[in-house]
Amino acid sequence: MQSVYYELIKECPRSGARLGKLHTPHGVFDTPMFMPVGTQATVKTLSPEELYAMNSQVILSNTYHLFLRPGSELVRRAGGLHKFMNYQRGMLTDSGGYQVFSLGAMRKITEEGVTFRSHLDGSKKFLNPEIATKVQEDLGADIIMAFDECIPYPADRDYAKASTERTTRWAQRCLAAKTREDQGLFGIVQGGMYPDLRKYSADSLTSLDFAGFGIGGLSVGEPKPLMYDILGQTTEHMPKDKARYLMGVGTPDCMVEAVNLGVDMFDCVYPTRVARNGTAMMSWGRLVARNAAYAEDFSPLDPNCDCYTCRNFSRAYIRHLFKAQEILALRLLTIHNLHFLLKFAQNMRNAIREDRFPEFREQFLAQWQE
Amino acid sequence: MQSVYYELIKECPRSGARLGKLHTPHGVFDTPMFMPVGTQATVKTLSPEELYAMNSQVILSNTYHLFLRPGSELVRRAGGLHKFMNYQRGMLTDSGGYQVFSLGAMRKITEEGVTFRSHLDGSKKFLNPEIATKVQEDLGADIIMAFDECIPYPADRDYAKASTERTTRWAQRCLAAKTREDQGLFGIVQGGMYPDLRKYSADSLTSLDFAGFGIGGLSVGEPKPLMYDILGQTTEHMPKDKARYLMGVGTPDCMVEAVNLGVDMFDCVYPTRVARNGTAMMSWGRLVARNAAYAEDFSPLDPNCDCYTCRNFSRAYIRHLFKAQEILALRLLTIHNLHFLLKFAQNMRNAIREDRFPEFREQFLAQWQE
Repeated sequence: MQSVYYELIKECPRSGARLGKLHTPHGVFDTPMFMPVGTQATVKTLSPEELYAMNSQVILSNTYHLFLRPGSELVRRAGGLHKFMNYQRGMLTDSGGYQVFSLGAMRKITEEGVTFRSHLDGSKKFLNPEIATKVQEDLGADIIMAFDECIPYPADRDYAKASTERTTRWAQRCLAAKTREDQGLFGIVQGGMYPDLRKYSADSLTSLDFAGFGIGGLSVGEPKPLMYDILGQTTEHMPKDKARYLMGVGTPDCMVEAVNLGVDMFDCVYPTRVARNGTAMMSWGRLVARNAAYAEDFSPLDPNCDCYTCRNFSRAYIRHLFKAQEILALRLLTIHNLHFLLKFAQNMRNAIREDRFPEFREQFLAQWQE
Repeated sequence: MQSVYYELIKECPRSGARLGKLHTPHGVFDTPMFMPVGTQATVKTLSPEELYAMNSQVILSNTYHLFLRPGSELVRRAGGLHKFMNYQRGMLTDSGGYQVFSLGAMRKITEEGVTFRSHLDGSKKFLNPEIATKVQEDLGADIIMAFDECIPYPADRDYAKASTERTTRWAQRCLAAKTREDQGLFGIVQGGMYPDLRKYSADSLTSLDFAGFGIGGLSVGEPKPLMYDILGQTTEHMPKDKARYLMGVGTPDCMVEAVNLGVDMFDCVYPTRVARNGTAMMSWGRLVARNAAYAEDFSPLDPNCDCYTCRNFSRAYIRHLFKAQEILALRLLTIHNLHFLLKFAQNMRNAIREDRFPEFREQFLAQWQE
């Protein structure tokens, strides 16, 4: 038995939604799941205990950032990421591919790998499948990701085809480079917005011995209907016995649609980033907590929410903290937003378990304000 | 019986140190005590629960800041400061005097009060004993402070005398303006660096019906030996049955000397401010946690410290968080520093209780590096 594997618990008979469990060396976690992002070995503003209190399961850290600072060697000597940041539940690291390719003019791709300039000091760096795998073994997360290229949108077919084929070759190199038995390696399905390339990518990767699969290159600027269309044409080629992780997606409307199409795992900086800008996520959309309208509103952000913030503080107090530029403001909204998305994933799981996911989805989308 | 009063438990037979209890509507708290500062209705970076976990007792908030933003009327409508910021232990507000006088050229003093410009938007504001008292009644702390003038250092004798006499007249006006029975009003002894003015100030204020007394105008730039000299010549004129609060002092060396001279209460932004600059308070002085020397130091800040930070995180991790400009860094050092000073106050109480305060003081000062 592999140390990281997906267990399918139940399929929704009227949609693609699935209930499952992700087994890892740091625990068994329920899917569909949302994974809070801790880019630099910390979920911004929060302590591990605050994450536990909101039932956070797997969190994500970024290979690119930790490779540059403090360096994966240092994290290895610290005893790995779990020990370094003192988070004892599940952990996943991306491969650095997405960040490196986002550097645009600051990087150069060859078959061997990617040369790029550090955004910190401009120094020249190199990542390839072997190094990205080694770095992730040093970091020591439960789940590690293959080094891939995230194809930009739009991309012409020739570029997308060459890139997708290279991502498959790189995925094979990652598998070959992997040495640790206690980590699960996920391949990443690419293919741009071309259904046949998505099929090729899914087929070629799922024939290899990965513990699960990421779905990359979506939510990169394309219209949402196109995203859902391509996503559906991707998951249909993916095996039922492996986890499916839609990378970089984490708004509730996209999550409910993706679960409907068979996705199990999500991550996104959206909830934590907008929290620090003063925006609270609500079941119907967004509440801008800094607004003057809330200056004397002594009710909680959401009276139906049982997060720490809503149980203890008023909109008026949170607005005051934002106006006064107090750090507690950032913490309180981060807690609320992550709690909201973790609870939302839990609500989806309950709906699947109770055979009412299609109704849940419909009701949610009917009251959602983009 | 007043709602706020000091109970003398024990006097050190070989020094001026005293063990006591401060009774308030929100609990009975042990003295000598250090009070964390929550300038804008939040102890910067921390939640109330984090303060409880480090045995924080009374915390301080600032009238000047809250008067300007969000306004004391709003806090009153929120149910008072305790409810607004959700801190359920003791609370003290200063009078705004210190901040207003710190504005320098931006303020003008008359017998009636002080006209000043807001540091936020330059708008014209006015505070006097009656308004400062009303504002503090709206805020609703357990302990409120008389509106005084903090005499700068150096100040000539004529200025100091006129100011000290005015502070006494203003203190009488604060007493007359006070309407709430559930708050204790402290007078503030001034007098600059002139022993006879200190005696005059102490005598004139202690003849009035205050619940306790602040000692103001020290640690304003004068050499430490002068500060201790003037402090000793002030406390000797203060009654034994009232609390003595040395305002704005909060380094351990000054605290141990002040306790030796009979002081019961302290507050200072020092521990929280230096924390945000990356400095950890240690029993022997300071540790600059951002230093490269700690990059691969996987031991805690202080192996003998039982604070949350030292129990869970390494110097290397904290340094990484500072280099990466992560907010958790500010939280972790703030927790450590406040825990350190609260524990230091507790250690002083234990020493007084066990008849070994002079030895405690001597040992502490012998290993202290300025």
